[in-house]
Amino acid sequence: MPPFDVPEGDPFGPHNLPYGVFSPPGSSERTVGVRLGDHVLDAGAAAHALGSPYASLLARPTLNPLLAAGRTAWSDVRRALTAWVTVPAHREAVEPLFHPLSEVTLHLPFEVADYVDFYASENHARNVGRIFRPDAADSLTPNWKHLPIGYHGRSGTVVVSGTDVVRPSGQRKAPADPAPVFGPSVRLDIEAEVGFVVGVPSEHGRPVPLGDFRDHVFGLCLLNDWSARDIQAWEYVPLGPFLGKSFATSVSAWITPLDALEQARTAPPERTHALLPYLDDADEEPGGYDLRISVAVNGHVVSEPPFSTMYWTAAQQLAHMTVNGASLRTGDLYGSGTVSGPTERERGSLLELTWNGRDPLELPDGKRTFLEDGDTVTLSAWAPGPDGARVGLGEVTGRVVPTA
Amino acid sequence: MPPFDVPEGDPFGPHNLPYGVFSPPGSSERTVGVRLGDHVLDAGAAAHALGSPYASLLARPTLNPLLAAGRTAWSDVRRALTAWVTVPAHREAVEPLFHPLSEVTLHLPFEVADYVDFYASENHARNVGRIFRPDAADSLTPNWKHLPIGYHGRSGTVVVSGTDVVRPSGQRKAPADPAPVFGPSVRLDIEAEVGFVVGVPSEHGRPVPLGDFRDHVFGLCLLNDWSARDIQAWEYVPLGPFLGKSFATSVSAWITPLDALEQARTAPPERTHALLPYLDDADEEPGGYDLRISVAVNGHVVSEPPFSTMYWTAAQQLAHMTVNGASLRTGDLYGSGTVSGPTERERGSLLELTWNGRDPLELPDGKRTFLEDGDTVTLSAWAPGPDGARVGLGEVTGRVVPTA
Repeated sequence: MPPFDVPEGDPFGPHNLPYGVFSPPGSSERTVGVRLGDHVLDAGAAAHALGSPYASLLARPTLNPLLAAGRTAWSDVRRALTAWVTVPAHREAVEPLFHPLSEVTLHLPFEVADYVDFYASENHARNVGRIFRPDAADSLTPNWKHLPIGYHGRSGTVVVSGTDVVRPSGQRKAPADPAPVFGPSVRLDIEAEVGFVVGVPSEHGRPVPLGDFRDHVFGLCLLNDWSARDIQAWEYVPLGPFLGKSFATSVSAWITPLDALEQARTAPPERTHALLPYLDDADEEPGGYDLRISVAVNGHVVSEPPFSTMYWTAAQQLAHMTVNGASLRTGDLYGSGTVSGPTERERGSLLELTWNGRDPLELPDGKRTFLEDGDTVTLSAWAPGPDGARVGLGEVTGRVVPTA
Repeated sequence: MPPFDVPEGDPFGPHNLPYGVFSPPGSSERTVGVRLGDHVLDAGAAAHALGSPYASLLARPTLNPLLAAGRTAWSDVRRALTAWVTVPAHREAVEPLFHPLSEVTLHLPFEVADYVDFYASENHARNVGRIFRPDAADSLTPNWKHLPIGYHGRSGTVVVSGTDVVRPSGQRKAPADPAPVFGPSVRLDIEAEVGFVVGVPSEHGRPVPLGDFRDHVFGLCLLNDWSARDIQAWEYVPLGPFLGKSFATSVSAWITPLDALEQARTAPPERTHALLPYLDDADEEPGGYDLRISVAVNGHVVSEPPFSTMYWTAAQQLAHMTVNGASLRTGDLYGSGTVSGPTERERGSLLELTWNGRDPLELPDGKRTFLEDGDTVTLSAWAPGPDGARVGLGEVTGRVVPTA
């Protein structure tokens, strides 16, 4: 019987073990859970039951204490969890501490400190350039190949998968309009991204070099950076996106530790421009991750963006983000930027998939340019795991509800 | 003897009573303090000594519990504090709970949730436009008079007055350079701003109307938004400032409650463009504040920016920041943007004061275009108070130290 007997090939088998925060059925208490198949292990309770020293990191209402504990602790806890859910001698003690996934409430798994969003897909950046600056000689801005462009977002509106997203209102003005108008966004979009979660802080004034990425970053999640294109277009010159993004950012309820993704590491695309030393990853271990993302609207898959095509790696983004001495905190979250592959079916936003509304998508329930009220968007993904297994990433889903 | 006998006319007299967090001499414990003259009252200890119910808000290591308590509590606590430091019957109990300001350690007074920075001075925005886009028909971008432009900054690098600021390194590239170069910023600047501190959260998905400003915002502080102009110039298209700002933002150790600034309220400049209803403050109480700021480099005053000239008010900024449904959290901080008045001696940045380095400032210790290592920048300010008194704002100071 489950959960020990997870079916062979389950993407949430014991080779995966992502972390989340849940409340058991009938309770509002939050505690750390680990997903196995379609069950959730109460990790703190298991640690207590087995006399583990890691109870202090796991019997907690957020992942932040575990995140802060550092790489050695992360590896030790993962090793212990693997034993708890696979060694038959533990079965009697551990099995009662599982809950069916369908019966628990999942929460935002960590307290978000700063949230940064990057713009690291060359295909995405070129598509955006072609759409908005069709006459430009180069679809990329001059800085794009020299640094991973990023900006700060609103950490207070990061929400967990399953949270409804209220359609934002705001100002918009087409170039030909005499004055801006106010109302609910009419160009509400998604951005399919991967989010990286910082565990170990850094010292203010000291950059974090490329090679220290795995000492600071605990794991990753899927992230939907909801975007109101009409609000964004009117507001973003000269200081960047603000209200077009800040109304909501959804993250998956499960954080996949980097340790579960060793087989998914891959070299990023060939660098076409020489990089300054702090970003030059030619002599580093492969910094890319082979994650196969799927974007579905109302259950219908509209795109499969490949994360392996991202030009800038998460390690480069971390090095860049701190090269000016900015410090990291436990709970910092940074998004990769929209993931778009080279083909039409690999684009991570409706802006690109519909070419700014010119080419509507044909869905079973009608045409779409941008999102309509009631639409549910779901990002899911998997990565190559050990011995041909897949590592499943927790999905991130959200439904658009009308402006309040 | 002090502190009861604060000299007549002291800008930190009992009409002011700003809040901070301090450690007493020889202790590393943090607790809420209230400034009176050149002394700090241990507010939690006073509440305990006098049997006040507010001890639970004041005997705390940050201002966040007081911030979250809301306007009625803010008024009640202020009324109680005023009595404690002025009513002779309390003198014996309260006087031993003061510490000389020079003997305490001041800390960041609240945990910063999200940090947003605006761009609300028309004089500043026009100066920047003239410097960087001298050929443009209008020195303002088309959106500027329709919405308060803002962006998110890094809350993890907000530091308290007195903290050294490490000169940031980063990429820069002049238009004529063939490729970017890396190194310590050579155009390190200041931005003299006022920061507003949010106390009461708002519901996600529900905008906060203009008239609710004082129910959410507790008080204000001085803020220096350190800026590396060379890093910013190369990175900021298309997603806005990032590393050019994120290395440090300094705030004063004292938060002045809005209740201490009633006499400083003033009407903002006449609106030259019709505003959408959510920003239209024609029928609102005056949203401006008459704060007289002073900017000193190594003790030499170089500018006196008048906050009363800001085009967009803090209430409008709050309404705009939430109009898309973005929620507020206790500890959110938002900066006004650089305060610059209409005359040369009223500009709040070296960029403007030296016209991007063209016209160096003559200081007693030599010429300055941008900041040199070892320079100390101090912002101070006062506002009109009751009966002709001045309300002093806590200064924000920081020294530039070389790249690590």
